[in-house]
Amino acid sequence: MDPEERKKLPSPHNLPTGDFYLYPMTVTIVKALITERTVNVEWSDGTVSDFHFLWLRDNCPCCVHPYTLEQTYEIVNAPKSLKPSEIEVTTEGVLTIHWEPEEHKSIFHPGWLKEHCYSNEKPLVKEAQKEIWDSSTREKPDEYEWEQIVKSEETELQWLQSIQNTGCALLHGVPLTEQAVGEVANRIGVVKLSNFGDFFDVRVDFDPVSNSNTGLELPPHTDLPTREYQPGMQLLHCITNEAQGGSSVLVDGFRVAEELQNKHPRAYKLLTTVPWDFANRSRTSDYRWKAPIIGLDDDGECFEIRAGSWLRHPLQAPPELMDEMYEAYQTFEKTTHDPQFQIRFRLESGDCMLFDNRRVLHGRAAYESESGNRHLRGCYIDRDELRSRIRLLQGNHRRHLILSEIER
Amino acid sequence: MDPEERKKLPSPHNLPTGDFYLYPMTVTIVKALITERTVNVEWSDGTVSDFHFLWLRDNCPCCVHPYTLEQTYEIVNAPKSLKPSEIEVTTEGVLTIHWEPEEHKSIFHPGWLKEHCYSNEKPLVKEAQKEIWDSSTREKPDEYEWEQIVKSEETELQWLQSIQNTGCALLHGVPLTEQAVGEVANRIGVVKLSNFGDFFDVRVDFDPVSNSNTGLELPPHTDLPTREYQPGMQLLHCITNEAQGGSSVLVDGFRVAEELQNKHPRAYKLLTTVPWDFANRSRTSDYRWKAPIIGLDDDGECFEIRAGSWLRHPLQAPPELMDEMYEAYQTFEKTTHDPQFQIRFRLESGDCMLFDNRRVLHGRAAYESESGNRHLRGCYIDRDELRSRIRLLQGNHRRHLILSEIER
Repeated sequence: MDPEERKKLPSPHNLPTGDFYLYPMTVTIVKALITERTVNVEWSDGTVSDFHFLWLRDNCPCCVHPYTLEQTYEIVNAPKSLKPSEIEVTTEGVLTIHWEPEEHKSIFHPGWLKEHCYSNEKPLVKEAQKEIWDSSTREKPDEYEWEQIVKSEETELQWLQSIQNTGCALLHGVPLTEQAVGEVANRIGVVKLSNFGDFFDVRVDFDPVSNSNTGLELPPHTDLPTREYQPGMQLLHCITNEAQGGSSVLVDGFRVAEELQNKHPRAYKLLTTVPWDFANRSRTSDYRWKAPIIGLDDDGECFEIRAGSWLRHPLQAPPELMDEMYEAYQTFEKTTHDPQFQIRFRLESGDCMLFDNRRVLHGRAAYESESGNRHLRGCYIDRDELRSRIRLLQGNHRRHLILSEIER
Repeated sequence: MDPEERKKLPSPHNLPTGDFYLYPMTVTIVKALITERTVNVEWSDGTVSDFHFLWLRDNCPCCVHPYTLEQTYEIVNAPKSLKPSEIEVTTEGVLTIHWEPEEHKSIFHPGWLKEHCYSNEKPLVKEAQKEIWDSSTREKPDEYEWEQIVKSEETELQWLQSIQNTGCALLHGVPLTEQAVGEVANRIGVVKLSNFGDFFDVRVDFDPVSNSNTGLELPPHTDLPTREYQPGMQLLHCITNEAQGGSSVLVDGFRVAEELQNKHPRAYKLLTTVPWDFANRSRTSDYRWKAPIIGLDDDGECFEIRAGSWLRHPLQAPPELMDEMYEAYQTFEKTTHDPQFQIRFRLESGDCMLFDNRRVLHGRAAYESESGNRHLRGCYIDRDELRSRIRLLQGNHRRHLILSEIER
């Protein structure tokens, strides 16, 4: 928050915390002790936190650049013998540490300290619980009105959380302009460019560079599986849809992974461990990547699906696994083609679909290009942008709550 | 290559291969047999390749869209009993397969088949052997003249391979315009945007959003370690440098990782396994990511360094590891600050430095902003773009060789 605005708050809320947020003071510090390696803090809710000396010195809220709030203290230069010479908890509930042999004083806001306590493990990049779906539990993506989102940060937050939780959301009432999809994207963050440009048009071309620019059916796939890092999210804005056919299809890739794990454990094992070859080539580019179709993180949880039947490169896998790999791949494809796992709906002019391109596969039914115009305009944006925007909106929401609390 | 140009080549070079390249016919097919699950090919160099039925059908060179060359056959629909009814090797050395129960004929170019043989394992995304360096083995990045690169694809390929192998390269003679850095980037591929825009200026600002826009020393770091996927490469184009100080510093992060692995195995273990917290926050964005500082791939090889002392977030790690984590981090920082691991040089007007931002740390000495103007302009571009451009140039080179061979 603005330093000037902060100064107007009652102490200790106006303490610099070294970051841009306000932190609630739901508990106070009852007692603080220096132990051999930590400052031990006892809170009014009965919990206890230990903060190590180097951690505290590293996070001193005054050792930051006044504008960027980026750290200016170099922890690599901290003396080996660094420790608190004296600590105190003031009557306002603030923890003050005097350091030796460095002559420096650090003042910690109790709300900030409580929020960043690491004595009980909690992940920093904590994402909301994901809602995994198929056609038995979901008919359509969650729907929102663009007009409402522009007016209300609360609605905007709900919209973005829908994308984070379910991997997709549908907007109505987006203006029918060529710029509109960029305006929707820029509300979240920075667009990700590709060799198809900043924005791409999905309609019939006479000399197409991609099957998407034909009237062909597009089976469910992720875009740019041929890149080391597939685009995190895709926006598709429908400007015109007068064609017969061309329904949109979405498939929750995490649900497909779950299905394979339960029903086809050998296929799941192969698809999560043996990398597949992808290539997207043209006269002017040659993108390739090799990675498992179902990506697992270090905890064995699915974090990414890579799929695009027509963007596969001749597979380079151990010969003794080749037949099994093809069988596993066919099982994966059959599952994504199965109506049980697909939701299907028609995009109308003014609709804009957003989906997590590393989780949700998208496709479309074939359409007759002679039956009427169909024009979608799209772009990509990374997951980082979504997470950043959600944090900001949550921070604004919290700041609002704290300020109303103080005013009461 | 252009289908019209291909038609002018002697057969079997003018066979469609399902991709954009020409393949050399260094060996011919001596014999081909149908086995239980594969077509077994014996080559004139004495080697043998097995190609599984589904693999061959999947890669049939005629089952692609005529313009995009993207596959149109759906392997998921292949009949279970699919197998060759008959195969033959023509007098021209081409392998022809008749399929049953599908009535289809596939004709394979022997050069293409040999190139994509998987009987002897070879990685698809094969990168050149990396040259790991420190100040005892390298004084400066490899140097190139921009004028030469524009004139010669061969020089361009050498330049890009320097970046791929050593993680950096230095261009001289880049025009002193605001657009020039974009022109250099676009020769390779598509620029990666960030919240700092498409291009960013490194010079002293009065209300800086980052420490880079101050005269402060910048210790060696990678840019945007706060993103799930750090930018693959960075370009820094020097438009003016009249300031005292401000030398550029590069550190090979892979060399640092090697040093830690050899001399500080416990620190190496912690830095490669326990994730660190990074955050890059402002009034309008809040990017965070949590990942080990030294990233290892599935083979245990270092593929990425994440470093930015002032972009660290309060570490959330198991309390029992906290002191050791700080010790490991200090060891890492001391190593990157050690002149033995740094190369140091001054960027002059017209120089443009490119480096792999996920491998090579960059920094600069402090400078007196009153002593003269210093203006660098930079942008990001992903590793995918570098690899794509290198493949294209290699393909052009190979095509040139094959065409001269045919003409002789």
